[in-house]
Amino acid sequence: MTVDARTILERCDALARETSSPDGIERVYLSPEHAAVNRATAGWMRSAGLVPRVDAVGNLLGRFEGRDPALPALLLGSHLDTVPNAGRFDGILGVMIAIAAVDRIRDRGDELPFAIEVLAFGDEEGTRFGTALLGSRAVAGTWLPEWWSLADASGTSLREAFVEFGLDPDLVGEAALDPADVVGYLEVHIEQGPYLEEADRALAVVSSIAGARRFALTLTGEAGHAGGVPFHRRHDALAGASEIVLAVERLARDAGCIATVGRLQAFPGGVNVIPGRVDFSLDLRGETDEARDAVWAEIQAVADDVCKRRGLMFEVDETHSAPAVRAASRLQDVVRSGILRTGDTDPTVLFSKAGHDAMAIADLTDWAMLFVRNGLGGISHHPDETVTEADVATALDAFEAAVLALAATHDS
Amino acid sequence: MTVDARTILERCDALARETSSPDGIERVYLSPEHAAVNRATAGWMRSAGLVPRVDAVGNLLGRFEGRDPALPALLLGSHLDTVPNAGRFDGILGVMIAIAAVDRIRDRGDELPFAIEVLAFGDEEGTRFGTALLGSRAVAGTWLPEWWSLADASGTSLREAFVEFGLDPDLVGEAALDPADVVGYLEVHIEQGPYLEEADRALAVVSSIAGARRFALTLTGEAGHAGGVPFHRRHDALAGASEIVLAVERLARDAGCIATVGRLQAFPGGVNVIPGRVDFSLDLRGETDEARDAVWAEIQAVADDVCKRRGLMFEVDETHSAPAVRAASRLQDVVRSGILRTGDTDPTVLFSKAGHDAMAIADLTDWAMLFVRNGLGGISHHPDETVTEADVATALDAFEAAVLALAATHDS
Repeated sequence: MTVDARTILERCDALARETSSPDGIERVYLSPEHAAVNRATAGWMRSAGLVPRVDAVGNLLGRFEGRDPALPALLLGSHLDTVPNAGRFDGILGVMIAIAAVDRIRDRGDELPFAIEVLAFGDEEGTRFGTALLGSRAVAGTWLPEWWSLADASGTSLREAFVEFGLDPDLVGEAALDPADVVGYLEVHIEQGPYLEEADRALAVVSSIAGARRFALTLTGEAGHAGGVPFHRRHDALAGASEIVLAVERLARDAGCIATVGRLQAFPGGVNVIPGRVDFSLDLRGETDEARDAVWAEIQAVADDVCKRRGLMFEVDETHSAPAVRAASRLQDVVRSGILRTGDTDPTVLFSKAGHDAMAIADLTDWAMLFVRNGLGGISHHPDETVTEADVATALDAFEAAVLALAATHDS
Repeated sequence: MTVDARTILERCDALARETSSPDGIERVYLSPEHAAVNRATAGWMRSAGLVPRVDAVGNLLGRFEGRDPALPALLLGSHLDTVPNAGRFDGILGVMIAIAAVDRIRDRGDELPFAIEVLAFGDEEGTRFGTALLGSRAVAGTWLPEWWSLADASGTSLREAFVEFGLDPDLVGEAALDPADVVGYLEVHIEQGPYLEEADRALAVVSSIAGARRFALTLTGEAGHAGGVPFHRRHDALAGASEIVLAVERLARDAGCIATVGRLQAFPGGVNVIPGRVDFSLDLRGETDEARDAVWAEIQAVADDVCKRRGLMFEVDETHSAPAVRAASRLQDVVRSGILRTGDTDPTVLFSKAGHDAMAIADLTDWAMLFVRNGLGGISHHPDETVTEADVATALDAFEAAVLALAATHDS
């Protein structure tokens, strides 16, 4: 009996019970819970005809050979780790659908012109060591030696965590796949937003993953006595920052980008002292780097104007920058054809505002993604994250069809 | 030889050396430095013909009898304590000018229809025990028993500090003056703002002391993932707070009031998390309570609109409220006539945005104040606070003339 949507949801429920926290789901890289979900998932891989193995960094992989064992592999995957107080579908759903799709393809008995490797990455969220995509970057061959000194909240280094998990840090390079052995990468993921719910669609083709730029910003004016300094002599850093916060919102919205000032604090912070300094952050994302960077230029122009009018100084420290990564057209077409097979005659195209393993895998091979509708307003990174059984069934149909569509056109 | 402006400045310099901090001026209530400035000032009082005494709470008073020892007293005064890292004129200048004015009046040999008491209050700033105006409230008879449990940063209670200073806490009530023994209160104070400098005037009549209202404000929205939640579904507490901060500035400025958001912090404060809550403060001052309260009503209306548009909740906790206190017309006229005698034919009228001892003394008797121009942009509570010798000379002339003008019209 092949795996259906109900079974996929039951498996997501089963993995949700592997948590370090009794009050919610939390499962971090190289933890006992990580080992437990690898074991459970390996069992389901075996049932689907996949041959499982844990790689040199703790990722679980399962291989299903094509018509010839020498053939390169189409990679299907997502991640099994979570943020604190997580939902049960983010990452997990993509792994479970990939296994179910292979189960169905195996049952069809067709020989494929490529192998399939299902990848269950051990770290996408970066919850434990503060650096994300450790699992997928190892597979892509972009693991950085400086990560060895990363430590978790209890002071355990990444190197020590490797040893505790039964891994040999010296063998980390063995996790990297050879591009010559790979056909491409397809990932199913729950949408971390409400767009599909609002559009009344089950599925979307992902066009790109937004590259975030993050900034630590400081606006400096002059502190002074609230009673003593009249408005026309003030250099109020908070009033200036407030103008910039509102401009960030307006400019990003107008450009179809997304921007967030998540952190902001006024100093010295006395109730009767005019703020002399404000420290704040900016997280800026766009479908393309060009769109995102144009918004940043506009924000800087506003800040310059604010500084001129108010006698303030603006300092910028870029703390993070990742380019947007674009899905390969040919694989977007494959995903689109899979969605068309489910009866959706005009598949929705979305860009992902959140990061995914595909960002790392982009350094190894072409990729595309399929988003599944998220219920309840797109709530993500939260226990209320939800999908419907019907949407999971549709996603499984589409994903299987996408793999078969690629097989039909693939020159092996 | 009567005391001139140069001597007044030298006395301010001498008191500035009585500090607990080698790096700046800091002189708090009931400290050894407090005792030292009381001693030095008592000497200058004696030279001016005043009979000094320390009252039951550590204030220094000096009495100059009128034509008959049974007459009630005109009070002239200000304070000798400081904030940390203070200037040398805030409070001190007013005491020194009062003593010099008595010195001159004594030299004239005229008999007055009232006695004069020069008051040098021991606590106006509230630096040590966090509650201001302790000295003047004792004189006004509004001392509160709950203050005994106040403690300074090192844990010394107000009661212990009394004993260390050589005072008997049980006698605190003796510091209160009887309204029947008092004619009124006049105070000279350096302006804690730039208005006189901008108006190119040496002196001003003070019309009122603004009553501040202070609020702890909270704006609550919904935290969410910076990548996942599109603008139209956000409930961003920081964007809402930014609108309110700018409205506070605009509405207070338009109404001639003064308002400051000094404290603001966004929570949870993650660089990639939409702020779900903002805590901020508001300090609001106006020449009249009506003007100030009208601005607060307008700010609340803006906040309500912001909450409606953005799906936020606004909570208000009023942490402090003091009514504006108005100078008595007849004493304002006396101060004005003093300024007219210096050649200023159209005396400037200002309201004080900062608090003064006169706010407490208002519970005892009528009051008025004379402001002296502050150099360097009105810098206050700072070592750069400055006055010119010429302005001090003009202030002394005006203050002496004001006392004589009151004497000329007084029915004893």
